[in-house]
Amino acid sequence: MTDDALLTDLYELTMLHAYFRRGMARTAVFDLAVRTLPRGRGFLVAAGLEQAVEYLERLRFGPADLDWLAAEGRFGRDFVEFLGRLRFTGDVDALPEGTVFFPDEPVIRVTGSLPEAQLVESRLINLLHFQTLIASKAARVVLAAAGKVLVDFGMRRAHGAEAGLLAARATYLAGFSASATVLANVRFGIPLSGTMAHAFVQAHDDEADAFGGFAAVDPEHAVLLLDTYDTEAAAAKVVALARTGVEIAGVRLDSGDLAGHAMNVRRILDAAGLQRVRIFASGNLDEHAVERLVAAGAPIDGFGLGTRVDTSADAPYLDCAYKLVEYAGRPRRKRSEGKTTWPGRKQVYRRYDRDGRLAGDMVTVDGDPQPGTPLLVPVMRAGRRVGSPPALEAIRAHGAAELARLPDPLRRLDDPGVYAVTIAPALERLAQIVDAG
Amino acid sequence: MTDDALLTDLYELTMLHAYFRRGMARTAVFDLAVRTLPRGRGFLVAAGLEQAVEYLERLRFGPADLDWLAAEGRFGRDFVEFLGRLRFTGDVDALPEGTVFFPDEPVIRVTGSLPEAQLVESRLINLLHFQTLIASKAARVVLAAAGKVLVDFGMRRAHGAEAGLLAARATYLAGFSASATVLANVRFGIPLSGTMAHAFVQAHDDEADAFGGFAAVDPEHAVLLLDTYDTEAAAAKVVALARTGVEIAGVRLDSGDLAGHAMNVRRILDAAGLQRVRIFASGNLDEHAVERLVAAGAPIDGFGLGTRVDTSADAPYLDCAYKLVEYAGRPRRKRSEGKTTWPGRKQVYRRYDRDGRLAGDMVTVDGDPQPGTPLLVPVMRAGRRVGSPPALEAIRAHGAAELARLPDPLRRLDDPGVYAVTIAPALERLAQIVDAG
Repeated sequence: MTDDALLTDLYELTMLHAYFRRGMARTAVFDLAVRTLPRGRGFLVAAGLEQAVEYLERLRFGPADLDWLAAEGRFGRDFVEFLGRLRFTGDVDALPEGTVFFPDEPVIRVTGSLPEAQLVESRLINLLHFQTLIASKAARVVLAAAGKVLVDFGMRRAHGAEAGLLAARATYLAGFSASATVLANVRFGIPLSGTMAHAFVQAHDDEADAFGGFAAVDPEHAVLLLDTYDTEAAAAKVVALARTGVEIAGVRLDSGDLAGHAMNVRRILDAAGLQRVRIFASGNLDEHAVERLVAAGAPIDGFGLGTRVDTSADAPYLDCAYKLVEYAGRPRRKRSEGKTTWPGRKQVYRRYDRDGRLAGDMVTVDGDPQPGTPLLVPVMRAGRRVGSPPALEAIRAHGAAELARLPDPLRRLDDPGVYAVTIAPALERLAQIVDAG
Repeated sequence: MTDDALLTDLYELTMLHAYFRRGMARTAVFDLAVRTLPRGRGFLVAAGLEQAVEYLERLRFGPADLDWLAAEGRFGRDFVEFLGRLRFTGDVDALPEGTVFFPDEPVIRVTGSLPEAQLVESRLINLLHFQTLIASKAARVVLAAAGKVLVDFGMRRAHGAEAGLLAARATYLAGFSASATVLANVRFGIPLSGTMAHAFVQAHDDEADAFGGFAAVDPEHAVLLLDTYDTEAAAAKVVALARTGVEIAGVRLDSGDLAGHAMNVRRILDAAGLQRVRIFASGNLDEHAVERLVAAGAPIDGFGLGTRVDTSADAPYLDCAYKLVEYAGRPRRKRSEGKTTWPGRKQVYRRYDRDGRLAGDMVTVDGDPQPGTPLLVPVMRAGRRVGSPPALEAIRAHGAAELARLPDPLRRLDDPGVYAVTIAPALERLAQIVDAG
C-alpha cells in the first residue's frame, strides 16, 4: 500500500485551504454508498476496510510532501503548517468486510472535523471501491463453483501492483482458496497455488522432458500444463511419467473445449490408476463459464481465474460516492439531477427469515432502532481502531456465512431478484426537513 | 511503484527453480503482444515502457524476500542464493511509448538468460498492459474532443493507488492536458487541475457564501461547481460574485443535460460580460459522450473524465501475452487451440502514405529488412538503459504525432477500419519450419 498523503485529488487540498481560511472545522459526517447495482448483479460484498483503517491511522503529510506543498505556489505557509499537523482523529463506523450489502446502504460512515473527513475522500473511495468491486465479482464465482477449488491468477492483468495484490485479498475473503500472487502470501498470508507456463514446455525440445524436469523438483506440488501442443497427447506423457514413479499433483487445461478435454484427460489418467491427479482449468474464465462447466459435469477439480475477475470485466467500476450528510449538527443532502442523496447519520437494520436467510433491510437515521441486526459497527473512535484488526481468516468465514444467507433469487447469476431495501419513515422525514430547509 | 520482486506469480519462481536444477540458462527471447483488439477498437497506443525499464533496472530480491523464500519450504538453499544474485542483465527492444500499434506486433521483446527473461513476465505484463490499456482509451477521447481541454479525474475509481497514478500518466501521454491526482505532479510533473466537490457547497448554509469563500482563496484557479442544487441559479450567483469584483476561472457542470445546461450557463455568464469564465463538464463521460457534446456544439471548454477512462470501462483488459519465441538459438511457438503465436525474434516495419498517414505494417523476422520504418528500437543492452529516459513531454509529443498520422477510418469511434498488418513471408516460413520441427 502506498502511504503517500499526496495520493489525493487536488480539490481536496484546495477545499481544505478554503475551510482553513474560513475557520470551518466543525464536525462533518460523510457516507460512502453505492447508488445502483451494475447490470445483472443482485448484491455486493463489502471489502477493503482493513486497508482503509490503516490509511486513516497512518495519514500524515511528511517532510517531502510539505516541501512540495510549499513550493507548489497556491498554498499559504500557515495552511501548509496546518497540513503538517493534520492527523485523522475522527470516528469510523462501517460494514464488516465480507458483509453482503445493497444500494443506498452506507459501506462506511466517517465522522470528524470537516478538513479531516473531507481530505480522506479520494483514497478511501479508491481503497474501498476496488476491493468491494472484486469481492463482489469473486462471490459470484464462488456461488457458481459449487464448492470446487478457485485460485486467483489475475495479477498480471490487474490494473497495477496494488490492484494485483488487493485482488488476491478480495477474492480470498470472498471464498477463493488461494492466489498465484506471491506477495499476497507475504503480506496477507494467503495460500499460494501455481502451475507452470507454456514457456517452460516450449523451452524444452521435448514436452515429456519438460514434464519430468518440472515434476522432479517438487512432485507433491507439481501441476503440469497440458495444452502447449496437444492436450490428450500431453496427458499420455503424464501417465508415462507416473510409470517412472513420479506422481504429480495435477494437470492444467488452458485452451479449447475445457469440458471435452477434461473428460478425455480424466479417462486417460483414470485408466492408468491416476485417480488422485487433479484437473485444473483456466483460460479467460468467469462465473458464467464456471457455472456452465459445473453444470456440464466436467471432471474439473478446480479453476484458475484471472483477468475477468481481477478487473471485474463485466462491471469494472461501481457507481459509488462519498457524500457529506451532516455538518455542524445540521443534516445535508445534495439534489443534483439523478444524484440525490439521503441526509444524516444512518444505520442499516437487517432482518432474517427462520432459515437465517436475508429477509429485508431498513435504512434509517442513527438512533431510530428497528427490528433486526444493525449492520454498521464501530471501527475507529477518535482516530484509533476499536479492538484488534480482524484476522483475514475470520473475515473470510464471515464472507462465507454471508453468502450462505443469500436468498435463492439473489444467488442466480442472471436476472437475480431485487432485494428489499426500505427507507425508514424517520429518514424520509429528515430528507423533507432538509429540503424545506 | 512497488519494487518488490515478490510481486510475481508463484509459477515464475517454481519454473526458475526447475531451470536452475536443470542448468537451463541459455538465451531466451520473449515477445509481449496483443492478440486481438477489443470490440469496436481500431488501434492501440503503447505505454508503460518507462516503468518497465525502471523495474528491470532495479530488480533484485532483497534480504526480506530471501528470508521469505528460504522459509517458504519449497525452494532449496542454493536456489535461494541464486535468486539473491539474480539481476536483469538482458536486452530490451520495444515500441517507444506513444506509438500506435496493432495485434501481432510485439510491444516489447526481452532477450536474456532464460531465468531472467522468464521471471520478469508477470510484472512486465502488469505494467505494460495497464498503461497501454489506458493510453489507448484516452487516445479515443482525444480524437473525440477536437482540441478541447481534457482532465483526468479518475484516481478514486481507478483500481488502487498505482492504477490511479499511472492512469494520470497514461492519459497525459495520450494527449490529456492535466490530472486532478496530486501525486501525478509530484512524481511525473503532470499539470494539475481541480475544481470543488459538492460537499464544499453543502457544508455551507448558503451556496453563494460557499462560492465566495472558495473563490476568495485563489480566484485565478477557482472553478465553481454549479449543480449541487440548481445549475442556472448557481450561475446567477457566479454573476453576483463577479459584481463584487471576484472573477473566477471557470464553472463545472456535473449532472443532467450537460449540453442544455452549458448553453444556459454560457448565456447567463455572457450576458454579464463574463465571456472569459470557462465551462467544464464532467459526470461519467467517455469518448462517445464527448463526441456527442462536441457535435451538438455545446459551449463546453473542457471535460473532466474519470471512471470510464481510468478503468477503460468498455474494455477493461487487453488480450495480451508474453510468449517464448526463441530459446538456445531455436525459434519456438505454442500451438494451443486459438492461441497460436509467431516464433522467433521479430521486427515491425511501417509504411506511410504521401500525407504521412499510416499505410500498412509488416511483421517479419529480425534481420529481414522491409520497406518502411522499423518500430522496435533498442531500449536496454546488457541490463542497462540505452540513452537517457525520454522526457514525458517528448513522449506526449510523439503520441500526438502518432494520432495525427492515423488514417481517417481508424479515427472513427464506432466501427473503425481494419488496419493492414501483414505477416512477412520470412516469418511464415519460420513458423512452418518450427512446426515441422
